[in-house]
Amino acid sequence: MDEIGLKIDAFLQQHLDAYIEETIRLCAQPSISARGEGIEECAQMVIGMLEQRGLEVQRFETPGNPIIVGHIDGRSPRTLLCYNHYDVQPPEPLERWTSPPFEPTIRGGALYGRGTSDDKGEFVARLAALDAVREAHGGDLPCGITFVVEGEEEVSSPNVAWFVRQHTELLRCQGAIWEVGGVGPDGRPHNALGYRGILAVHLNVTSMKQDAHSGNAHALPSAAWRLNWLLNSLKGPDERIRIPGFYEHVLPPSEMDLELLEAMPEQESMLRQVYGVKHFAGGRQGAELERAVFEPTCNIQGLASGYQGDGAKTIIPAGASAKLDFRLVPDQEPDDILAKLQAHLQREGFSDVELVRLGAMWPAKTDSSDPFVQLTSRTGEEVYGQPSLIVPMIGGSSPVYAFAGPLGGIPVVSAGVGYWDNRMHAPDEHIRIQDFINGSRHIARIMAEFGRI
Amino acid sequence: MDEIGLKIDAFLQQHLDAYIEETIRLCAQPSISARGEGIEECAQMVIGMLEQRGLEVQRFETPGNPIIVGHIDGRSPRTLLCYNHYDVQPPEPLERWTSPPFEPTIRGGALYGRGTSDDKGEFVARLAALDAVREAHGGDLPCGITFVVEGEEEVSSPNVAWFVRQHTELLRCQGAIWEVGGVGPDGRPHNALGYRGILAVHLNVTSMKQDAHSGNAHALPSAAWRLNWLLNSLKGPDERIRIPGFYEHVLPPSEMDLELLEAMPEQESMLRQVYGVKHFAGGRQGAELERAVFEPTCNIQGLASGYQGDGAKTIIPAGASAKLDFRLVPDQEPDDILAKLQAHLQREGFSDVELVRLGAMWPAKTDSSDPFVQLTSRTGEEVYGQPSLIVPMIGGSSPVYAFAGPLGGIPVVSAGVGYWDNRMHAPDEHIRIQDFINGSRHIARIMAEFGRI
Repeated sequence: MDEIGLKIDAFLQQHLDAYIEETIRLCAQPSISARGEGIEECAQMVIGMLEQRGLEVQRFETPGNPIIVGHIDGRSPRTLLCYNHYDVQPPEPLERWTSPPFEPTIRGGALYGRGTSDDKGEFVARLAALDAVREAHGGDLPCGITFVVEGEEEVSSPNVAWFVRQHTELLRCQGAIWEVGGVGPDGRPHNALGYRGILAVHLNVTSMKQDAHSGNAHALPSAAWRLNWLLNSLKGPDERIRIPGFYEHVLPPSEMDLELLEAMPEQESMLRQVYGVKHFAGGRQGAELERAVFEPTCNIQGLASGYQGDGAKTIIPAGASAKLDFRLVPDQEPDDILAKLQAHLQREGFSDVELVRLGAMWPAKTDSSDPFVQLTSRTGEEVYGQPSLIVPMIGGSSPVYAFAGPLGGIPVVSAGVGYWDNRMHAPDEHIRIQDFINGSRHIARIMAEFGRI
Repeated sequence: MDEIGLKIDAFLQQHLDAYIEETIRLCAQPSISARGEGIEECAQMVIGMLEQRGLEVQRFETPGNPIIVGHIDGRSPRTLLCYNHYDVQPPEPLERWTSPPFEPTIRGGALYGRGTSDDKGEFVARLAALDAVREAHGGDLPCGITFVVEGEEEVSSPNVAWFVRQHTELLRCQGAIWEVGGVGPDGRPHNALGYRGILAVHLNVTSMKQDAHSGNAHALPSAAWRLNWLLNSLKGPDERIRIPGFYEHVLPPSEMDLELLEAMPEQESMLRQVYGVKHFAGGRQGAELERAVFEPTCNIQGLASGYQGDGAKTIIPAGASAKLDFRLVPDQEPDDILAKLQAHLQREGFSDVELVRLGAMWPAKTDSSDPFVQLTSRTGEEVYGQPSLIVPMIGGSSPVYAFAGPLGGIPVVSAGVGYWDNRMHAPDEHIRIQDFINGSRHIARIMAEFGRI
């Protein structure tokens, strides 16, 4: 591996500027799935980038945004699948960006812009890895490579699951590299094996036909107060979710999970520093903060009701709404949770409240003893000079479930270009150039060795 | 009174066209205090209209818009004060006006335009009453008359209270006629004797330095949830406000207030129809809806937190805010309530939440047994041919308190030119010509008799 590794590293160092330029071009193209902005243009760019490297590209229409699949054979019959997405989060609040979100800008060794980290920079780093590993093997690839690049990850990937189920032959592979890999605050490469599921819903309360003067507040019903009472019926300050049956299918972490959790560096001081936290959710502290990732959550994404401008406006709002997401752990099922939420609203007297399902993903988890996990762990250590950190479960969600099961229980690992303070989904999202290089080096090594396990 | 009454009515009928013309000229002059449009021009017109009738006029500058005071002596040493304002609400939405808001237009026996009802038409009707009652008394006035015409009523009268306190000698009087009088859907003249106070506040919760990915919801604190729990500590679905000491100074309605409440027409069916209400606040119904105006309220004007756009955005909001107004009854004090709210937030663990005082008005109430109330009630019945409806307390707020207390506990009643569907603050604001005549007839009779009680 030494000689291949040296060739990979030399190639990537030599072509770095071109790959950063390619990332800038891709990130300059907005592709906001939440409101359908720039999707088609961005999908076209992705197709071009894959075709230009000789992959056989197919574009699949879905009820939402197109899914792009690119495949190229290699010397080994084994195929490695790379999952990425070309859509991004909305950039708001705009005023909190140091440089405009869709004008990618290099500052202090990092590239700033929406999508630089999540997930366009990562996609380009993988293309760079493919180029490098091919160059290092004299123009051949050591294994087959399949890219699946979808356009709805930021809106909960509503179409990937059925797409994979319909194309298991096309997508046949023996392992997959997931998005959002990278290094932690300690500089160690992180490998996430588990993802929580999610159920996102919108609640709409309507109490009257129109807003009323607040001089009638002793008589007329307020949608804002009803929403407040509804939310209060879901969760109190102890963070325990009050929907009956909510915890019914929750699996506790395994013995090995608990060992991996114990080996993890503490998060508390990092979270305090990055987010300026004084009191954590539910009064948790220390190791409780890591352990709690095996518990489901109920989060308010946003609240809106009545007058939000300057000064006062003496109205009783006729409408109020909240967006919620529930993060789910194995073996919770989003639609079972939705049914339990509906039943709870009925019981609590909120049957008139409109409940809209915004999206769902299922939890998924790879066994930490799988050889593929050992491979990525070993190559990670080679690139980063430190032992990989294997994270049994991360707090976020990902359509891993859509691939792992339908493709025969393949192992799925994460390896990539991120670090702990990328500001994904937030203003000033960025990627460090050194992480881009290291992420490419790591992926290229995984590709080089994947055919042999 | 018969002869005087006949003379008054004949004079007003004879000069009606001139008074409608005068109203049209005044309403054609925009005077939008919310954005400072046309204030000076309109103040000049008001000064001219008062001077032209021989009143001694003084103009007082304030930190906001000028307050105009006009006074004229009468045969009796007693003085009646008329409160009016020359500013108007913004006219938007313009497209919903049948004729332009500042081009007053007569249609179907009514005059349409911004300010026709609130409060310029009312002001001219009082000038007409003054002219009529002087003519009926051979050129003298039966009592002293003082007009206070301010220019900031539509922006919560921030300068009237201190102005009155500084000029109690100039404004000395034995009773006052308030704005916004008129007739209800039943054609009976309404006389409001009480107004609730108000305390408006803004609450800002900050839980972190920045929004975070909702995959961290098991650890990072949510501003939206904290706001929810804070609000829940203020009031439950029973509408009882949970701030300790909140009800300490609440006076229950008197025996006479309860009698007046019982004599009032029921509101329930009107509220159900206009607002499409199914369940009233606190489960109230029937006479409870009228009775509850003697209770203070805690209303949410608006809520804002996190993501409010289409679809989902998987964030934990770092910030959340609410605007509240508390309607207060005698003898609650806004600043005492503010202090109690602050203390409550401290006790409940919300001492980090920013609390901003947006504005305040005090409650005020005239005793229904006051002879002045009997006078306006009797003269109202004479003009309208139906018994007056005496409303002991209305739900809204008004700067009545700014006059009543500082001027020695004077009685304050409302009598005017409005009716229940004037569209005040809305497109197609108007005044019915017959209401203008009747309002003038009523005010003139009050002026004629006021010197004798």
